[in-house]
Amino acid sequence: MKKKPIRHRKSNASKKAGLPPGSITYIGKERSEAAILEMISYNPQELSKVKYDTCAELHKYMQPNSVNWINVDGIHNYQLINEFHDIFKLDNLLLEDVSNTNQRPKVEEYENYLFLSLKMLRYDEVEKTIDSEQISLVLSKDYVISFQEKTGDVFGHIRERIEAPKGQIRSKKNDYLFYSLIDSIVDNYFIAIENIGNDLEDLEDEIFNDPSQKSLQKIHAYKNVLLVLRRSIYPLRESVNKLLRDNDKFISPRNIKYFNDVHDHTIQIIDILESYRDVVSGLKDSYLSSLSLKMNQVMQVLTIMATIFIPLTFIAGIYGMNFETIPELKWEYGYYYFWAISIAIGIGLLFYFKKKKWL
Amino acid sequence: MKKKPIRHRKSNASKKAGLPPGSITYIGKERSEAAILEMISYNPQELSKVKYDTCAELHKYMQPNSVNWINVDGIHNYQLINEFHDIFKLDNLLLEDVSNTNQRPKVEEYENYLFLSLKMLRYDEVEKTIDSEQISLVLSKDYVISFQEKTGDVFGHIRERIEAPKGQIRSKKNDYLFYSLIDSIVDNYFIAIENIGNDLEDLEDEIFNDPSQKSLQKIHAYKNVLLVLRRSIYPLRESVNKLLRDNDKFISPRNIKYFNDVHDHTIQIIDILESYRDVVSGLKDSYLSSLSLKMNQVMQVLTIMATIFIPLTFIAGIYGMNFETIPELKWEYGYYYFWAISIAIGIGLLFYFKKKKWL
Amino acid sequence: MKKKPIRHRKSNASKKAGLPPGSITYIGKERSEAAILEMISYNPQELSKVKYDTCAELHKYMQPNSVNWINVDGIHNYQLINEFHDIFKLDNLLLEDVSNTNQRPKVEEYENYLFLSLKMLRYDEVEKTIDSEQISLVLSKDYVISFQEKTGDVFGHIRERIEAPKGQIRSKKNDYLFYSLIDSIVDNYFIAIENIGNDLEDLEDEIFNDPSQKSLQKIHAYKNVLLVLRRSIYPLRESVNKLLRDNDKFISPRNIKYFNDVHDHTIQIIDILESYRDVVSGLKDSYLSSLSLKMNQVMQVLTIMATIFIPLTFIAGIYGMNFETIPELKWEYGYYYFWAISIAIGIGLLFYFKKKKWL
Amino acid sequence: MKKKPIRHRKSNASKKAGLPPGSITYIGKERSEAAILEMISYNPQELSKVKYDTCAELHKYMQPNSVNWINVDGIHNYQLINEFHDIFKLDNLLLEDVSNTNQRPKVEEYENYLFLSLKMLRYDEVEKTIDSEQISLVLSKDYVISFQEKTGDVFGHIRERIEAPKGQIRSKKNDYLFYSLIDSIVDNYFIAIENIGNDLEDLEDEIFNDPSQKSLQKIHAYKNVLLVLRRSIYPLRESVNKLLRDNDKFISPRNIKYFNDVHDHTIQIIDILESYRDVVSGLKDSYLSSLSLKMNQVMQVLTIMATIFIPLTFIAGIYGMNFETIPELKWEYGYYYFWAISIAIGIGLLFYFKKKKWL
Amino acid sequence: MKKKPIRHRKSNASKKAGLPPGSITYIGKERSEAAILEMISYNPQELSKVKYDTCAELHKYMQPNSVNWINVDGIHNYQLINEFHDIFKLDNLLLEDVSNTNQRPKVEEYENYLFLSLKMLRYDEVEKTIDSEQISLVLSKDYVISFQEKTGDVFGHIRERIEAPKGQIRSKKNDYLFYSLIDSIVDNYFIAIENIGNDLEDLEDEIFNDPSQKSLQKIHAYKNVLLVLRRSIYPLRESVNKLLRDNDKFISPRNIKYFNDVHDHTIQIIDILESYRDVVSGLKDSYLSSLSLKMNQVMQVLTIMATIFIPLTFIAGIYGMNFETIPELKWEYGYYYFWAISIAIGIGLLFYFKKKKWL
Repeated sequence: MKKKPIRHRKSNASKKAGLPPGSITYIGKERSEAAILEMISYNPQELSKVKYDTCAELHKYMQPNSVNWINVDGIHNYQLINEFHDIFKLDNLLLEDVSNTNQRPKVEEYENYLFLSLKMLRYDEVEKTIDSEQISLVLSKDYVISFQEKTGDVFGHIRERIEAPKGQIRSKKNDYLFYSLIDSIVDNYFIAIENIGNDLEDLEDEIFNDPSQKSLQKIHAYKNVLLVLRRSIYPLRESVNKLLRDNDKFISPRNIKYFNDVHDHTIQIIDILESYRDVVSGLKDSYLSSLSLKMNQVMQVLTIMATIFIPLTFIAGIYGMNFETIPELKWEYGYYYFWAISIAIGIGLLFYFKKKKWL
Repeated sequence: MKKKPIRHRKSNASKKAGLPPGSITYIGKERSEAAILEMISYNPQELSKVKYDTCAELHKYMQPNSVNWINVDGIHNYQLINEFHDIFKLDNLLLEDVSNTNQRPKVEEYENYLFLSLKMLRYDEVEKTIDSEQISLVLSKDYVISFQEKTGDVFGHIRERIEAPKGQIRSKKNDYLFYSLIDSIVDNYFIAIENIGNDLEDLEDEIFNDPSQKSLQKIHAYKNVLLVLRRSIYPLRESVNKLLRDNDKFISPRNIKYFNDVHDHTIQIIDILESYRDVVSGLKDSYLSSLSLKMNQVMQVLTIMATIFIPLTFIAGIYGMNFETIPELKWEYGYYYFWAISIAIGIGLLFYFKKKKWL
Repeated sequence: MKKKPIRHRKSNASKKAGLPPGSITYIGKERSEAAILEMISYNPQELSKVKYDTCAELHKYMQPNSVNWINVDGIHNYQLINEFHDIFKLDNLLLEDVSNTNQRPKVEEYENYLFLSLKMLRYDEVEKTIDSEQISLVLSKDYVISFQEKTGDVFGHIRERIEAPKGQIRSKKNDYLFYSLIDSIVDNYFIAIENIGNDLEDLEDEIFNDPSQKSLQKIHAYKNVLLVLRRSIYPLRESVNKLLRDNDKFISPRNIKYFNDVHDHTIQIIDILESYRDVVSGLKDSYLSSLSLKMNQVMQVLTIMATIFIPLTFIAGIYGMNFETIPELKWEYGYYYFWAISIAIGIGLLFYFKKKKWL
Repeated sequence: MKKKPIRHRKSNASKKAGLPPGSITYIGKERSEAAILEMISYNPQELSKVKYDTCAELHKYMQPNSVNWINVDGIHNYQLINEFHDIFKLDNLLLEDVSNTNQRPKVEEYENYLFLSLKMLRYDEVEKTIDSEQISLVLSKDYVISFQEKTGDVFGHIRERIEAPKGQIRSKKNDYLFYSLIDSIVDNYFIAIENIGNDLEDLEDEIFNDPSQKSLQKIHAYKNVLLVLRRSIYPLRESVNKLLRDNDKFISPRNIKYFNDVHDHTIQIIDILESYRDVVSGLKDSYLSSLSLKMNQVMQVLTIMATIFIPLTFIAGIYGMNFETIPELKWEYGYYYFWAISIAIGIGLLFYFKKKKWL
Repeated sequence: MKKKPIRHRKSNASKKAGLPPGSITYIGKERSEAAILEMISYNPQELSKVKYDTCAELHKYMQPNSVNWINVDGIHNYQLINEFHDIFKLDNLLLEDVSNTNQRPKVEEYENYLFLSLKMLRYDEVEKTIDSEQISLVLSKDYVISFQEKTGDVFGHIRERIEAPKGQIRSKKNDYLFYSLIDSIVDNYFIAIENIGNDLEDLEDEIFNDPSQKSLQKIHAYKNVLLVLRRSIYPLRESVNKLLRDNDKFISPRNIKYFNDVHDHTIQIIDILESYRDVVSGLKDSYLSSLSLKMNQVMQVLTIMATIFIPLTFIAGIYGMNFETIPELKWEYGYYYFWAISIAIGIGLLFYFKKKKWL
């Protein structure tokens, strides 16, 4: 069975067609789990963690002098997302982008907050597919909100660093947390692309040694995986670049260097990505060449066999004829003479092929 | 029979050659239906709908404090189009563009109105073709005019939203209606491209499993469909971008964010489009590789059969010769000795092919 | 015989090497016809037409308050071209460009006139070649000069419109005539490209149904035709764009919109051109795939026939052997048993090929 | 034997590695000829020509009110080049570039002179190779120096024009001579590219009619020749463009138009070059297609012959069997019946192939 | 066994994921050698060389009026690298880049020093691989630090020039040393690329004469080698360009020309690199064409042999039949008549193939 490497946007974009702008419509896979709202508030001295079902409750517990990180697990819950409009005053167009799992990575500055939409990518090594998840981050003076499409994330390290009482992150502000979340996602791109790199080397071996229908499908699959990565990382680089250019409102100048670092990372990923695309396209050519080479070898075997035995069979056919007067048939050494001729022809042709380097 | 995926501009551009500028000439398919003029006027309180045959009549019923949306169905009617010059004072060059169904999407600012020409695309899932229709929009302080080439459109949702007494659209002005029309058309591009995406996956399966002449024609057809999409969406993005840059006259600053949203959508469509183009070009390579692979398999079968049986047939030929002195023929177990040799050669060659991985 | 689709610059560029700048050297095909000088002078009231052999005579008849359109047919006449330097004070470098039929389209502003060099293209539908002709236009306050390489042009419509007493063109100035000439040439590009489009569709059918050596040559020819178009239209777009940017001296602001229109047309031609280039390159791939597919079919027929009959012939060979002791030969139903085995093998192999989808 | 179309930079770049900057090291082919120093001094009235072995001697004869053109033939002479530093005060980095035959074309403005490095290209029509020579030009208020790598140049026309007492060049200054030298070199590019164009047409014929291993090598060779041209002409265009932008110091405004002309020529060469690159890449595809087509024809012949005769041979084999009971063998007209069947099968298959368009 | 031409980033990027920014983590190959710290201090009069194990010791011996070049061999020593933060006050983000062997070449200006990260490349001629090493340079008013990943470098020439008492370098400052280090690395790129060029020519010969599986792997390997070079040299050019633009703080204006020279070299390397990429991609096509051509020849041999002998064998088969009434068998010259027919058919077919140019 063919494994689909990636469903090309097998989304339900059509669900959205015809709706007025600002309509919050979840278009990803159907999900039934309850959404989870979690808030970590911290400053150098204190740390608190709360979990609630509604924004309203959560909002009460926000700490004025702390970094408030609100993590939302499950953007499929229409009502919950809507609450952010009511309670956090987030713009409806922004929330539409949050729940639109096809959203292209982008950054947008609103009056009171900064919005960044990006993709969390995980490479499934068994299925050789990219598992893509929509992440939206909102940075304001008072809080950082992260909206996640699916349960499970790559923020474990950050939570640990926050919980460590003397972690550098504890003494930093919202913008640093915002950076840390982005950095953590981008770091995961490196892992994904490193795995793809290893897989590509194995595929290269396979193609040179034993090219098959399956190799072809794999090439196709990797090509698509790299296309998906590409569609995630290029707009992300643009977004980070835009952050760097117009950053004075929500990001303190001292922390610009961190975002610069993320920007460097995105460029590096793009570099690697582009060379992998070159590699994949080279593999496709190699595959075709490998097939051609194999065909050449097959044809040479056939041609050698046929060319040697077809004339010999003809000669044997001659002396199998029933003409009444075939003088050779009556010779005493006729049969041996036949063998002599046959072997001479055979050896002659073998030398000919040797000279032609077919052997 | 081959289905033509798309007539590459099989238009009658030559009809226009040599005419002075501003000549209103319909160059699309011949149409005989009467053109339809319809006007919806609305404000938060009121809503009226009228249908007339001439501009003159319609013009009388325009509501000064309402949004007047005039929809023209049928740009092939030369006289009707001409009336817009006389009554609405639209420039002749503009009306030439309206009736030129080959017009490239563009935006142009005139003194009293803004002109946007774009394409409405529908993907015909059965014929696998793009059905392209020329739409021209004119936005002035007093009205929005939409010129359509064919009957039937994608504005049904907008009409419903206007008719709903408390719809957001009712409280908004001309520019919002103008935006809604564009948005509606762009949303339809998503549906078209989503369908193409699904078709491409099916085609991928077909090519890997059973590549045929038909698959090749399909690849060619999709390539052309994407070319048509491309020629529609790139200039549209430029046009929307131009709207965003120089917008102060006809679009209120509060509504800029909506046009921004449309711009984002066009970029997203271009992103997907470009990856589909990559996918299609990959499919072409896969098709060729699939053919090569199949050929290899065919040749291997031939070579194995021929290589095994050609020497055996030669041996059989030998003992069919009529030499008087073939000693083997007189041996008691000559026949069995023949079989022994034949089977040994056959098995030997099978092992050889096994080792070469041809089996 | 192979038809040469286009002579790639089979010019005599070497004639020019080593000459000092400003040397007026005609490098096109040798021509012996006399050059023709024609002047049409018109204003809303009057119209006159004169034909002379020398500039000197012509110059006397120029009307001060009219548009004077001087059309020169035959740039191969060195002396005539030189007269323009003496009498109209045209720069020698300009006249060098006029007589250089390899001149790349360009626009240049001199102190007293504007110079535009472009290509008139006609698509020869029988020979499938582009017939390219060098046209140079000079616009000054007092006259418009058009230099043509060959007899016959695409300005017939313009002459008719000038001769019509109430034509719009009669009430306009030099710059409008200048525009009309350019527009007329660009409109002809549309016709050329439309014809190519139709031919490409026919070629597509041919390639899918019966690919031959001739199809390959046609693909190659169209590729070259599009290359020639490309080398004419891209610099023309640049030139028109330059006209639009720096136009205040010779073109009145009221007429800018016409040049804008020409600019739009050049962009549209480029759009179509580029998609045709894509189509042609797709055809080349399709051609190769078509060949591969056909080869596959040929090989399958061969393989099926050979695979079925080679073993059967071997069996027939066995029973043609002259061993004294072949038990089967003595069986009563030996011959029928032979047929039974042969037919069983044949049917078995047919089923095998059926299963492999080779039949 | 394969002719190497071009030695890809088979230079001795490694000789230079590790040397301090400004080290004058000749890295071209070893040459033993003495270098030649020649100076032509001219003004409208006077003309003198001197030849010396050292700069010191030459320097004395420079005419203050004349154009002094110093031509150096042989940059392999380290001492001579070094003298230019001592006597003409040329910068060591400049002289390093002069003697570095791998120098990329570039222009550099020093305080007292302008330096332009470019390539003189000659197309060897017999060997189908580009003969590339490093030329460096230095323009100061007092002199023009041209450094040549090899004996023989393309400046013959210029020398003739200088020697003609009333030549335009005699009345012009240093900058015009500087322009003339550049123009002369660029004109030679046209000749080279025109020859390549003619060769490409012949190659096209060859590929369509009789594609061989040699054609493939030619394609490869032309591709490399065009690559070399490309690496020479692109930086030259940049350099001339830079001259045009920042020209006030050494080039008089009146002569700018000449440099503009050279710039136009470089663009035109690039245009032709790029279409030739397209043509060459098209030839490669055509070559492959031609091979495929030929293979198809070969396979069809084989398949037709084999498909017709293999079953017939089987039938003949049947009646060559020695079964005691083959009824047909005893029929009176058995032999004619065999022929009837054979001919029927043969003709039937011929019709089948006819229908399949293989004949 | 296949030699891996290059390990595509087989690094341990994942080691870094989740760590806070500024974490100094060596991700290259495990190394156990002790790191080496060496300092050369020189001015026109004096020269001293010291080797220490810790920064602290070294720091004491820095000469205030000398150029202090500190060379660190071994960035895998975490503690040593950390000392540079403590003693030389280098930023932690900078040191993170120093120890990250995957760092993309970049330049960064800090308040007190300039940081440049680049790659030292060596082409291993036996293994046909690029050996890439991470080099980081820090330029401050007081010192130049070079961090190397591996033992052994390309700075031998520089050390010699420093040790020569009258070397130009001795009279220059820090910035000149900084330039010399960069120049030395870039010069080595020339050697690498020159070697690749020579190898490519050999490969070209191989492909035209005897294309094999190994040639294909070599093409693939060179393609990857060029990709690696590309990923090193493009960002390096950008970095040097950035140095040239914003250079006033650490580089004296007098020395800008040297950096300009390095910039020219990087552009030249890129030029050569890009043409080699073209050459390699041409080789791939040539390889495929070579295979096709060889296949054609193989098939022609097969077809000629089969086409000649298959009908002859059929005829021989006819007269081997046992029909009782085959009249020819009884003719006196039947056998000779058979030979006459056979030879006539054979010669006829040979002429046919001759005419088809298959022989």
